Amino acid sequence: MKALQVVIPGELQLVEREMPVIENSNEVLIKVKAAGICGSDIHIYHGTSPVATYPRVIGHEFVGEVVEAGTAVDRVKVGDHVVVEPIVYCGHCYACRNGRPNVCENLEVIGVHRDGGFQEYFKITQDRVHLLSPSLDWKEAVLIEPFTIAAQVTWRGDVRPGDVVWIIGAGPAGLSILQYAKLKGAVCIVADVEQDKLDTAKGLGADHVILSSEVDPVEKVYEITEGMGANVVIDAACLPKTFEQAIQAASAAGRVVVMGFDSRPSAIAQFLITRRELTVVGSRLQTYKFPEVIEHFQEGRLKPVEMISHTFAFDKFKEAFDLIESKAEKTSKVLLIFED
Amino acid sequence: MKALQVVIPGELQLVEREMPVIENSNEVLIKVKAAGICGSDIHIYHGTSPVATYPRVIGHEFVGEVVEAGTAVDRVKVGDHVVVEPIVYCGHCYACRNGRPNVCENLEVIGVHRDGGFQEYFKITQDRVHLLSPSLDWKEAVLIEPFTIAAQVTWRGDVRPGDVVWIIGAGPAGLSILQYAKLKGAVCIVADVEQDKLDTAKGLGADHVILSSEVDPVEKVYEITEGMGANVVIDAACLPKTFEQAIQAASAAGRVVVMGFDSRPSAIAQFLITRRELTVVGSRLQTYKFPEVIEHFQEGRLKPVEMISHTFAFDKFKEAFDLIESKAEKTSKVLLIFED
Repeated sequence: MKALQVVIPGELQLVEREMPVIENSNEVLIKVKAAGICGSDIHIYHGTSPVATYPRVIGHEFVGEVVEAGTAVDRVKVGDHVVVEPIVYCGHCYACRNGRPNVCENLEVIGVHRDGGFQEYFKITQDRVHLLSPSLDWKEAVLIEPFTIAAQVTWRGDVRPGDVVWIIGAGPAGLSILQYAKLKGAVCIVADVEQDKLDTAKGLGADHVILSSEVDPVEKVYEITEGMGANVVIDAACLPKTFEQAIQAASAAGRVVVMGFDSRPSAIAQFLITRRELTVVGSRLQTYKFPEVIEHFQEGRLKPVEMISHTFAFDKFKEAFDLIESKAEKTSKVLLIFED
Repeated sequence: MKALQVVIPGELQLVEREMPVIENSNEVLIKVKAAGICGSDIHIYHGTSPVATYPRVIGHEFVGEVVEAGTAVDRVKVGDHVVVEPIVYCGHCYACRNGRPNVCENLEVIGVHRDGGFQEYFKITQDRVHLLSPSLDWKEAVLIEPFTIAAQVTWRGDVRPGDVVWIIGAGPAGLSILQYAKLKGAVCIVADVEQDKLDTAKGLGADHVILSSEVDPVEKVYEITEGMGANVVIDAACLPKTFEQAIQAASAAGRVVVMGFDSRPSAIAQFLITRRELTVVGSRLQTYKFPEVIEHFQEGRLKPVEMISHTFAFDKFKEAFDLIESKAEKTSKVLLIFED
């Protein structure tokens, strides 16, 4: 079977691999049907991931059909459609014991620390798969994993009905967060430096948009909220400056969510955090969010298809990666579709 | 009656005032028995408070006896011992509606935005007083308000049984937080630059102490926790550098509490917050914490007396302030005692 491997940073190859073989009774073999390319796949490709090891079959957003199941498998059966939850954790460190396996001391992310889903067949223990309705289109289903990230962000930011939420950045992350925050009943302000991304945000329910290249976005947030500030600020642009803006724009008792891996410092005065008793949280991967996102997808409460800008056949991966790299601003989610 | 007023920054005077008169049926008149001098009183005295207005009768840590009560007063009666909760809020802004009146948009702190407790008699609505057992010594009872700050800090930091809590700074704030964290079942590490403050911390239950002037405290925390980091870091030193250290030393799924008003920036990389999915919170004043602290005092679960380093008669206020200013490192809590 074929697998897409980053051999060393900068070198992406379709390699021939042995078919995975079920060795333990709780494993399932999945025929991969569709997968999404994420920013972190690009980082691993370029060697700018702080955590990945090489060689590595990338891909952590993927769905497929169960084609074989071990004798102890009882959560799914052959023929079922499934999505893979791409985190593997120890279960006994401080984070795991406190319900936060996403930051487990011994965390392994599929497609980052161990081989991922950009391959024709994938073997995993049954506890890492979630059953999907066969009525859900494969392409849509690929978006479940990115939406679990949005679910995590709105959970970490404690988004409540009626809250004013400011989302900085209208890329795929910002737009999925927008949809999730709207689902939670928030009033959403979205800022970006590109007007066409803001137009997409409006189509997905943004109540207010701010073109950050034209106006001071923090001032604009205070204007829109009549001096209160935003109750939740989500920095989906992940730059040193946007983290500072997020802190400045948060209301009393407000929450600020950061999700970036930029190691450059932001200038943050503790005064701003104490004065309004802010809560500033990191959001990384997700914690037990697959079931709720799957339900939202199956009930039609989210619009994942609008997030997809391009699809390519798996063996046309090079064109997909070239497109993302040459026209990042014109792409949203790019998918790889596997042969039946 | 006499009142201690900061007339203008730098000028502290004992002034003669009219006795307060009950005008509304829900008001009580309190004969003040004892009061504590807090760092923020010193800031108002020196004109370095970012919020105080002048002239101002200072003092927000005080207790006394009800000597008169309006006709509608039903929570307390004449002769009762009470402590005053020194925050007044609107009840309808975002923070108030979300259970956080301590950061109300229209917040007034008694002794800061309106006249406080360094006066012989004090009038207030009954909802701002809490009943005390007469068996509780007046001097001890003065410490209830400072301990509500510690209660808030450990609540904001979500201190859980078994958590490793690193408290930076062993001044009065750090030591009351230490006691509160111990009460919640935490393992406590305390750091300070002075050995005698660390000795006091040990006497109050610190499990480990770090002399920050001799060793790198962050490295030491990792050594003590065998690489995990502290589950909760409480920065009671409130300096730009200690905020940075707090972020560096927090474990996966850890919490960092800041309580300072220093407006100088700290250098904080979002990477450190995202990577371990930290929760960084401000803690200011307190929210509904008087009842639990009063219960701990009355049940003898906290050791407030050990926090008191000096007591002065009210009219010897000048000696009290001079002592705090000239020998800050040798004082812990300094009290003013009123004549019977």
